[in-house]
Amino acid sequence: MYLKNCWYVAAWDHEVLADTLLQRTILNQSLVIYRREDGSTVAMDNRCCHRHAPLHLGRKEGDCIRCMYHGLKYDATGRCIEVPGQDSVPPKLGQRVYPTVQRQRWIWIWMGDPALADASLIQDMFSLDSPEWRWLPSYLHYKCNYLYIADNLLDFSHLSYVHEKTFGGSPNIAEARPEVSEIERGVKVSRTVRNTVPAPYHKRLGNFTGPVHRWFNYDFVVPGILRLEGRVQSVDNADDDMTGALRFHSCQALTPETDRTTHYFFMQAHNFRLDDATITESILQSQRAAFLEDKTILEAQQAMIDSTPDAPPMRPIAADAGLARYRRLLQKMVDAESAS
Amino acid sequence: MYLKNCWYVAAWDHEVLADTLLQRTILNQSLVIYRREDGSTVAMDNRCCHRHAPLHLGRKEGDCIRCMYHGLKYDATGRCIEVPGQDSVPPKLGQRVYPTVQRQRWIWIWMGDPALADASLIQDMFSLDSPEWRWLPSYLHYKCNYLYIADNLLDFSHLSYVHEKTFGGSPNIAEARPEVSEIERGVKVSRTVRNTVPAPYHKRLGNFTGPVHRWFNYDFVVPGILRLEGRVQSVDNADDDMTGALRFHSCQALTPETDRTTHYFFMQAHNFRLDDATITESILQSQRAAFLEDKTILEAQQAMIDSTPDAPPMRPIAADAGLARYRRLLQKMVDAESAS
Amino acid sequence: MYLKNCWYVAAWDHEVLADTLLQRTILNQSLVIYRREDGSTVAMDNRCCHRHAPLHLGRKEGDCIRCMYHGLKYDATGRCIEVPGQDSVPPKLGQRVYPTVQRQRWIWIWMGDPALADASLIQDMFSLDSPEWRWLPSYLHYKCNYLYIADNLLDFSHLSYVHEKTFGGSPNIAEARPEVSEIERGVKVSRTVRNTVPAPYHKRLGNFTGPVHRWFNYDFVVPGILRLEGRVQSVDNADDDMTGALRFHSCQALTPETDRTTHYFFMQAHNFRLDDATITESILQSQRAAFLEDKTILEAQQAMIDSTPDAPPMRPIAADAGLARYRRLLQKMVDAESAS
Repeated sequence: MYLKNCWYVAAWDHEVLADTLLQRTILNQSLVIYRREDGSTVAMDNRCCHRHAPLHLGRKEGDCIRCMYHGLKYDATGRCIEVPGQDSVPPKLGQRVYPTVQRQRWIWIWMGDPALADASLIQDMFSLDSPEWRWLPSYLHYKCNYLYIADNLLDFSHLSYVHEKTFGGSPNIAEARPEVSEIERGVKVSRTVRNTVPAPYHKRLGNFTGPVHRWFNYDFVVPGILRLEGRVQSVDNADDDMTGALRFHSCQALTPETDRTTHYFFMQAHNFRLDDATITESILQSQRAAFLEDKTILEAQQAMIDSTPDAPPMRPIAADAGLARYRRLLQKMVDAESAS
Repeated sequence: MYLKNCWYVAAWDHEVLADTLLQRTILNQSLVIYRREDGSTVAMDNRCCHRHAPLHLGRKEGDCIRCMYHGLKYDATGRCIEVPGQDSVPPKLGQRVYPTVQRQRWIWIWMGDPALADASLIQDMFSLDSPEWRWLPSYLHYKCNYLYIADNLLDFSHLSYVHEKTFGGSPNIAEARPEVSEIERGVKVSRTVRNTVPAPYHKRLGNFTGPVHRWFNYDFVVPGILRLEGRVQSVDNADDDMTGALRFHSCQALTPETDRTTHYFFMQAHNFRLDDATITESILQSQRAAFLEDKTILEAQQAMIDSTPDAPPMRPIAADAGLARYRRLLQKMVDAESAS
Repeated sequence: MYLKNCWYVAAWDHEVLADTLLQRTILNQSLVIYRREDGSTVAMDNRCCHRHAPLHLGRKEGDCIRCMYHGLKYDATGRCIEVPGQDSVPPKLGQRVYPTVQRQRWIWIWMGDPALADASLIQDMFSLDSPEWRWLPSYLHYKCNYLYIADNLLDFSHLSYVHEKTFGGSPNIAEARPEVSEIERGVKVSRTVRNTVPAPYHKRLGNFTGPVHRWFNYDFVVPGILRLEGRVQSVDNADDDMTGALRFHSCQALTPETDRTTHYFFMQAHNFRLDDATITESILQSQRAAFLEDKTILEAQQAMIDSTPDAPPMRPIAADAGLARYRRLLQKMVDAESAS
């Protein structure tokens, strides 16, 4: 139940260096990802068509890759161009390659029909590539289905509970009603929390001594791409007075590895005190600490679901509006794809 | 294939302190066990009805428990009494709770129909709560089905082999014929071993220099509750002359965790040299050492059975009388329960 | 899909000492292997017929073995000769035993019909038992089906890639065409690689300063027995001039443990510099280092195959000639066996 004709994030650009053969499983497919001499990326089925040994244990030779079991050599289009001890190459030999695009620090991959791969569908993750924002890249591997992480991201009420001591700080976030609306290929969520205590880590960063307003505005589009603008400012300021406000922009991407594991690529950028590297590092650590709280509850949720296959269905509450809308939209797209 | 309408031991009382949220799986059900302000115990389905996150990662609030994923709050009857961000609570929200009774240091749980939960069915484990007996509490987790442990307890011939160097000491135990009789909801086993060598650890405790008589009298009732009186005394004494005799009383309870794992609660009490704490500690250590011998053979038995699903059936011998009778009785009760 | 009526290697002789009860699983059967007082070997089903506890946790008593759960005692023919606490032994009690033969340091086992066990079918592994050859015994446990190791052994083109830095040294090995022919119950493979660089470890052993010729001549017979003659000599020598040549003889045996794991028994003997024990040790270490390279790629191959059950079939190349012929031959023998 995956959307195929869409762009998934396959890797951070720095995960694939000039000589890297990166093994990465995406939608249950084992891939090897590497770079041509010109720096462009190649994603190829990792299972050698000959004896099913993995190519990531192979050798990069220029733009080509050689399986280091029996020496079959493939070019960057997946064509087999050499079989040791044999003069001609049987036409059935060859590897499937997947369209990839590197943009703004992420390597995107198209797992569906290559003829439909349209790079204009790739979201603009502007803060990944802007001198006005500072950030550090991060990655976590979650032992749960990616939709449980999507659910989590589509209902920030969990900040009050899962992240009580990090991102949250008070039940006010859960009490605030978000606005959820459908956008192209996704949903948009806006939540304003007025006159609340600052989150513990905002307090540290912003030196707030009294109550604050908090804004969360984000869109979440298929297959799991989040762009979030966050703002915290003192209640003493007018809404449009940014003096002393903290502004964040976060880019996050969920890529299913298997039905029960997920690659999670993320960063959280700040546009204040750009010259202070300790701020950037501190935000990274705070975000990772909070995401590890998510990881704990989500992996426990997955384990619970796995261990009770006959459980009654989940019971909806009002806060599910965002995730329910996203799941319906995704299901519709998956159905349309399998019908075509 | 579990009896539901009966009392299982869920925990030692000291496992559930005032602020504990104990996760415990019983009959494949994940439960959270905690105490009300008045000390009485609550056992609730651990899977939150909303998104199936586990409540044991939640927060105790007075007599209530709050799921720390999205903040749903349940009272001690399992009723959902708060959904953050929502004025009313949908009627379908709620958790199943299971009757529990704390008695004589054990917390008992009724996994079946609550209307049938009759506390008078709980066995009197008198030595758990008597100034005439001293003991220390113990627990082991076995990676095998609980019935293999029941089998083990219903045939003490294994003392001669599994416990050759601990509880046993000679083949005489296996050679003695036990009397097995049916009692209400269980079986009673009596075995007298006359004129034998003392078990290695009895020798240490009782300073026996010559042969002894040994008595094992126990009942074992559903769903896996053992009460054992053990006695060792010199052959120089008349049977009713307790001078220098060692007398023990052991309370043991098997609670299925899953089909292949078991909670084992146990203690072995002594009523001699009550003022010597080293005796109590030494008996605990001896019992644990012997139970680890059982654990080794029983887990190996389970692994063997799992790895050979097409094995021919087990071949009975005379020593199986006790376990065969217990298994028939249990099967009859399970059948009756599923028929009703 | 295993051939039953054939001899598998069960163990090195030194794995079964006078008091050993060796647990070993072969063709998914858990066995206990031990020695009679006269040194002859016994292989018996490890699962006690009574309660399915494993006999390898039992006790050897003369030529007999006693289950240390309830004390049943079996003689070396598998007959139950004692049940503690019982005067007679029910006729259904007993263990299956498997024919074994110890020859030339290996203990061979016949997993099929004992009436057909013909010791003359055991290959002569002469170097295992010859003063003209020196070697050290070795064993590795592979997490893959034994046929993938057979494939590997039947196509030495992999030496150029898997063993580039150990057994290989150049693509010449893969480029040379081997001769493959069918022999009784197996195949024979001959490969001559002329005028090539010596393998890194041959260079060390033979002090070759220039190019060499390499000969690989081996047969591989069911169920997975390899006998290999290897030779390396300077191109300056005539083919029949052995001065300074390195000659090896390797005995190897594959025994399926389960469908996904294999026992691999092997050694590589040398007949030069017999008085230098460091040579023998060095060859052992080189062989193990190279086999660990195989183990890495073969276990990765097995994992890849397991994780992609819907993969298209493997695509053949010319180098598969040996393995394809062996697999056909084996399949024919298995079919014949199951038809009879």
